[in-house]
Amino acid sequence: MHLWSVRPLIAQALREDIGTGDVTTEAILPPGTPLVGRLVVKQAGRIAGLPVAEEVFRLLDPQVRMERHVDEGSDVAAGTVLATVSGEGRAILSAERVALNLLQRLSGIATATRDVCRAVADFPVRIADTRKTLPGLRALDKYAVRMGGGINHRFGLYDCVLIKDNHIAAAGSLSRAVEAVRRHVGHWIKVEVEADTLEQVDEAVRLGVDLILFDNMPPDEVAAAVRRVGGRAITEASGGITPENVRVYAATGVDVLSLGWLTHSVRALDISLDVQPGR
Amino acid sequence: MHLWSVRPLIAQALREDIGTGDVTTEAILPPGTPLVGRLVVKQAGRIAGLPVAEEVFRLLDPQVRMERHVDEGSDVAAGTVLATVSGEGRAILSAERVALNLLQRLSGIATATRDVCRAVADFPVRIADTRKTLPGLRALDKYAVRMGGGINHRFGLYDCVLIKDNHIAAAGSLSRAVEAVRRHVGHWIKVEVEADTLEQVDEAVRLGVDLILFDNMPPDEVAAAVRRVGGRAITEASGGITPENVRVYAATGVDVLSLGWLTHSVRALDISLDVQPGR
Amino acid sequence: MHLWSVRPLIAQALREDIGTGDVTTEAILPPGTPLVGRLVVKQAGRIAGLPVAEEVFRLLDPQVRMERHVDEGSDVAAGTVLATVSGEGRAILSAERVALNLLQRLSGIATATRDVCRAVADFPVRIADTRKTLPGLRALDKYAVRMGGGINHRFGLYDCVLIKDNHIAAAGSLSRAVEAVRRHVGHWIKVEVEADTLEQVDEAVRLGVDLILFDNMPPDEVAAAVRRVGGRAITEASGGITPENVRVYAATGVDVLSLGWLTHSVRALDISLDVQPGR
Amino acid sequence: MHLWSVRPLIAQALREDIGTGDVTTEAILPPGTPLVGRLVVKQAGRIAGLPVAEEVFRLLDPQVRMERHVDEGSDVAAGTVLATVSGEGRAILSAERVALNLLQRLSGIATATRDVCRAVADFPVRIADTRKTLPGLRALDKYAVRMGGGINHRFGLYDCVLIKDNHIAAAGSLSRAVEAVRRHVGHWIKVEVEADTLEQVDEAVRLGVDLILFDNMPPDEVAAAVRRVGGRAITEASGGITPENVRVYAATGVDVLSLGWLTHSVRALDISLDVQPGR
Amino acid sequence: MHLWSVRPLIAQALREDIGTGDVTTEAILPPGTPLVGRLVVKQAGRIAGLPVAEEVFRLLDPQVRMERHVDEGSDVAAGTVLATVSGEGRAILSAERVALNLLQRLSGIATATRDVCRAVADFPVRIADTRKTLPGLRALDKYAVRMGGGINHRFGLYDCVLIKDNHIAAAGSLSRAVEAVRRHVGHWIKVEVEADTLEQVDEAVRLGVDLILFDNMPPDEVAAAVRRVGGRAITEASGGITPENVRVYAATGVDVLSLGWLTHSVRALDISLDVQPGR
Amino acid sequence: MHLWSVRPLIAQALREDIGTGDVTTEAILPPGTPLVGRLVVKQAGRIAGLPVAEEVFRLLDPQVRMERHVDEGSDVAAGTVLATVSGEGRAILSAERVALNLLQRLSGIATATRDVCRAVADFPVRIADTRKTLPGLRALDKYAVRMGGGINHRFGLYDCVLIKDNHIAAAGSLSRAVEAVRRHVGHWIKVEVEADTLEQVDEAVRLGVDLILFDNMPPDEVAAAVRRVGGRAITEASGGITPENVRVYAATGVDVLSLGWLTHSVRALDISLDVQPGR
Repeated sequence: MHLWSVRPLIAQALREDIGTGDVTTEAILPPGTPLVGRLVVKQAGRIAGLPVAEEVFRLLDPQVRMERHVDEGSDVAAGTVLATVSGEGRAILSAERVALNLLQRLSGIATATRDVCRAVADFPVRIADTRKTLPGLRALDKYAVRMGGGINHRFGLYDCVLIKDNHIAAAGSLSRAVEAVRRHVGHWIKVEVEADTLEQVDEAVRLGVDLILFDNMPPDEVAAAVRRVGGRAITEASGGITPENVRVYAATGVDVLSLGWLTHSVRALDISLDVQPGR
Repeated sequence: MHLWSVRPLIAQALREDIGTGDVTTEAILPPGTPLVGRLVVKQAGRIAGLPVAEEVFRLLDPQVRMERHVDEGSDVAAGTVLATVSGEGRAILSAERVALNLLQRLSGIATATRDVCRAVADFPVRIADTRKTLPGLRALDKYAVRMGGGINHRFGLYDCVLIKDNHIAAAGSLSRAVEAVRRHVGHWIKVEVEADTLEQVDEAVRLGVDLILFDNMPPDEVAAAVRRVGGRAITEASGGITPENVRVYAATGVDVLSLGWLTHSVRALDISLDVQPGR
Repeated sequence: MHLWSVRPLIAQALREDIGTGDVTTEAILPPGTPLVGRLVVKQAGRIAGLPVAEEVFRLLDPQVRMERHVDEGSDVAAGTVLATVSGEGRAILSAERVALNLLQRLSGIATATRDVCRAVADFPVRIADTRKTLPGLRALDKYAVRMGGGINHRFGLYDCVLIKDNHIAAAGSLSRAVEAVRRHVGHWIKVEVEADTLEQVDEAVRLGVDLILFDNMPPDEVAAAVRRVGGRAITEASGGITPENVRVYAATGVDVLSLGWLTHSVRALDISLDVQPGR
Repeated sequence: MHLWSVRPLIAQALREDIGTGDVTTEAILPPGTPLVGRLVVKQAGRIAGLPVAEEVFRLLDPQVRMERHVDEGSDVAAGTVLATVSGEGRAILSAERVALNLLQRLSGIATATRDVCRAVADFPVRIADTRKTLPGLRALDKYAVRMGGGINHRFGLYDCVLIKDNHIAAAGSLSRAVEAVRRHVGHWIKVEVEADTLEQVDEAVRLGVDLILFDNMPPDEVAAAVRRVGGRAITEASGGITPENVRVYAATGVDVLSLGWLTHSVRALDISLDVQPGR
Repeated sequence: MHLWSVRPLIAQALREDIGTGDVTTEAILPPGTPLVGRLVVKQAGRIAGLPVAEEVFRLLDPQVRMERHVDEGSDVAAGTVLATVSGEGRAILSAERVALNLLQRLSGIATATRDVCRAVADFPVRIADTRKTLPGLRALDKYAVRMGGGINHRFGLYDCVLIKDNHIAAAGSLSRAVEAVRRHVGHWIKVEVEADTLEQVDEAVRLGVDLILFDNMPPDEVAAAVRRVGGRAITEASGGITPENVRVYAATGVDVLSLGWLTHSVRALDISLDVQPGR
Repeated sequence: MHLWSVRPLIAQALREDIGTGDVTTEAILPPGTPLVGRLVVKQAGRIAGLPVAEEVFRLLDPQVRMERHVDEGSDVAAGTVLATVSGEGRAILSAERVALNLLQRLSGIATATRDVCRAVADFPVRIADTRKTLPGLRALDKYAVRMGGGINHRFGLYDCVLIKDNHIAAAGSLSRAVEAVRRHVGHWIKVEVEADTLEQVDEAVRLGVDLILFDNMPPDEVAAAVRRVGGRAITEASGGITPENVRVYAATGVDVLSLGWLTHSVRALDISLDVQPGR
């Protein structure tokens, strides 16, 4: 993730929040009043988004400086001071909410991902995200998943083939769907097939696809499917996997568990900015 | 909320997801293949975002039609078919994820808001949102809060004055902050003050501000503050209010409870699209 | 007004004027030729827009420097040198027209506003603007009104309720319109009602609205209306108010006079850039 | 002027005015309420901008219809109904201000241009505009000048060479400036020279430039210059020309008078929208 | 390729060409003059871009109709009439150049790709493109390659790993580079390694990468490398492959030949629009 | 050409290529790894685009430095090191392709233009480009033509009148077309007429147009047409002119030869970036 590529999103967020002006701050704080703010986390968690938050302040005023006291991606206790922001007070107050909104979401995603990864750490399985993100936030959300120790699934409809029921029905059969895909897409793109039954699993293996997704299968069926694949494709399970049952799924031997709620039902990590007069 | 104003956001979401093309669908589904999809909700909840989801499909293909089976803003049981989408199959498959991502978030917000509103329905208090939303989504998130029965707090830094500690410190005193604001802003804009102590509450009342925000006050202190105000300003409490203690806060007599988690920690409502061949 | 938020408008203006290139300057002036330009005002007036003009030059070349000789918002005599611009000659010549176009308009608005404010300085009335501005210029035009000593009315349809005839007709009555508004909008937004008759004024007062606008009323009717309101709402008059009769309206005791011509019929203040070889 | 090219500007204007929503109209007017509005001009003048105003309404709702009762570019008496707008009431009320702001400005420009053209109608001189327009509005402002009977001067720095003092100083002499330009620009672009003295006029003629601009010259000097040119270049005068002295300048025999105030100091033509319930 | 995703590029092209207006057509052709244009190809070739050209005309006027006489992707003889465009004459004349510029380029790419594919048709090798395209045109250029019978290599730096010398040097060794990549990227993304020597080829095979690129190797070395790989990875050759030697490279048994000149040195196919009065 | 105006195009190209991230480089190269790259040209040619390439690297990281070893616009031998780029390794590797794509195209155009100019250097004729460019690249392509020693024809439909058959047919006659144009366009814009026959040439001369274009005429007819014009207009020939017959056309005495293939069928100049560890 290049900060460069996040700048348009940050600009959009600032425009949305500041609009025609921060009427309170502009009325009260004279230009040039220095302030110092400390980013304090109220809950234990894993921190992601410090460079993004810094960019928010600096987009409003390039002279604002942020000194980090913890590394991006580190685990912190409640009460930890994450960083100190100093410079033009107007910029700090007007950018505060946007910076926190992003930092809290990304840290929330990283923390949830870390927790799942830890829960299955004694299995060789990997935790992945999905495309269940919000407009404009996909690159950031997926970055936060990586910060939490997860891996990314495809970024969009364009960079990996995923053949589902509807595609199979439209093609007439799985083999015809795979054949159509191989004619159409380049040699550098992987092909994944969503399988609902063990028969479909067998067929997918026969067709030599790269990945097989077991969608909404109970754990024992996933285990059976994994055995049928026998290492001839990467296996992935998705649907109905919760923090409660994730170890059961991990024990099936599947290679990847992909979890929509990592990004579609984020619990923001509570972080605040304590501001003091600066020098 | 004009659909017109949401179109750029939807276009951005589609560009982000489709990128250089939906490689699977384009390889397999011939142009002109009709499909019919049913939007089915998997959990009970309140629905918000049907017009937005419709716009997603129609932006990709204006000929796609969506027939609604429930009204926007209605409460539905698990398993309810919300709407039927029909038309060009490629457009329906390629737009599916973006439509669901938005519909699930907005319905999640509406449901959570409805639940809080119901919990305090026997009190005259109103439930409001905050500015804790994500880049580009503020208007939609706040629309979903209204669909859930809540009211909106200010949309940004530009449309309501909210004087906080830092502003008071910078001005020297609350009265000087209020005075600065009244010189600067128009006569059509309300002035809210964040008060941490009863003394500040008294001073805010004396200054004739329009709204007073009790931030992070325990319920009994809120109750005391409300009494001190005695109806001379709109009162609002925020910070530390959860589904568990919301009735206690409602019982304080405060006019408005504003809840950041309505939008910063959204739990998506589970909705899927079941697709069948069309005619 | 953040300069940050004005940059897209300035970039648009420069693109519009420079297009595929300043053919004259690029043909004649070698890169690196230093020039010095003096911004000279040809008429007495109040100056607004110096930071905007500076930004125009600096967007084309960040090394260009502008030294101001008068403060933003100050009153100047004809012939005053407002500022000196120095640096890359190509940037100064190519940006000149855009910088002047903006500076002349904003100073024109500030001057006209100042003149009206002075004319009624012995009354407690305040002078406000309207939404009669041009695409993209609203924030700048309203900034210029503030520089002239006026206050701003609402920035758009989104930040203040203003109930007019058509709304009343659609709702059935003023009381039903107000009721609908109070259900729909948040507690932080003010409600203004446009009243054409004294009966409507009475009803608006009874309904407890925040502001009442007397539209196109003759001065004596405004005076009567103000008396009827008796301080229970902020009063505002608009329509048919000219420099000639503004004192008569001010004498009515109304709180605010809002004037469309401050921004829809601007007389640019004559300012030029005198350029000399630099060092 | 393609309406197609004006659409981004209109969208920007609507976004600026409507922002997060027209709170009044959305609260009060149910979707689907038909309204009919009549565009009525309050002053005599020449009308320009009807297609632009129509586009404003239709951008918000493509079903809105506008029936014109007068032709674009026609001269109308005070009280004339210009057009009738009918359709979705919400769109009509929310778009009203933006449509009027543009229509009033363009008609104001067309009227002022028409008046000057009429004043000099018995001379062969033509009236032209300048680059003194506002960001984003150049194409529209120049269209309005054409509607008023004027002609357009260059649209930007890119489509005509105009050599001024600073260019001559930088080049060393007028002849060297012209030579540099002829090396740099294509054969399809005209070359104009700004001349302050009769000697410069003679030199410009000798160099065979296409147009000569007499800047800030008194009328008798313009007359002398025109004689010196003797038809060997197009002649143009600018600076200090007012409605009062325009006939004196026209009498000099100069080919073109270019007037900055046509667009930098526009007096909006008073036009309103009278709205009634529709069917 | 969704036409929907090409629209911003087309709008940009039309804005670039039309700018402030098509002065010739607007001066001469009254609005509403119908014209009919025939797209005629002057050289034999393969046609790609008809839907794009149609979109150009329709963006300017949605009423313009294009009737195709040949299928997209078909091979045509010189003189073939590809399609007939009819409707508003102003739109047809003003859009002509942009439509032709795109159609000629895409058909040029498709024709060149077809010619190479034909030349090696008796080998199992496939012809691929590269990232050597121009800003904004990548999706279109790669579409044209597919129309010519080629396949696409990666669309950007984001959707396939390609490890080159500099990456290996920075990592210390190929195995460490591959290891770093596998930690960082998701399971759905393929890994390609650029190999300059047979030793590197052996190491890449050992590491189990998905694709191996032989860069700038002479044909016999490619043949040796292909034998060393022995089907354990997809093989690709690039660099120095011309229409003259392409069969020699194809004979090496390599899976894919990727050719930069398919898109970086395009020879436009000569196509013109013959316009006649319409009805 | 202002670099400032090219920045949006470069940003678009980088976004297109980098998308959600350069997965290879981000996985392998730690932030802060310095690299040094040398731009080496593989073929003799004329170099255009060095400032553009520099801007590509610097947009990704403003600290990257490029030291030029040859001047923009100079002729170089194969093997020449054009410039050295040094700084943040991630930025250099991720920007490489976009920088080369632009530099190779512009140098290809400049080289082809230079070659034609040289071929006709002993004639007074000038070589010009056309509007046959790609979306967004017109200003850059035309800049490269100037670097090659050519001149630019009009930049778009907006800055020069060019009356073709269809316009004449629509107007009824050439004289009526010219008359319509003179009423419509400003005095600063040139008028060119496309003539297919000597009769049309005569008429165009009689009407006093500024330029006459002989389209698709054989050389002897061009020579005859040039004699008929006798210097009373600038003459231009276009269509069917190739490197092989360009001297024959030049010998006709025509003023300008305009060549579409300079920009529509560009042969990229082969340039590569050799990267080494930096300090």
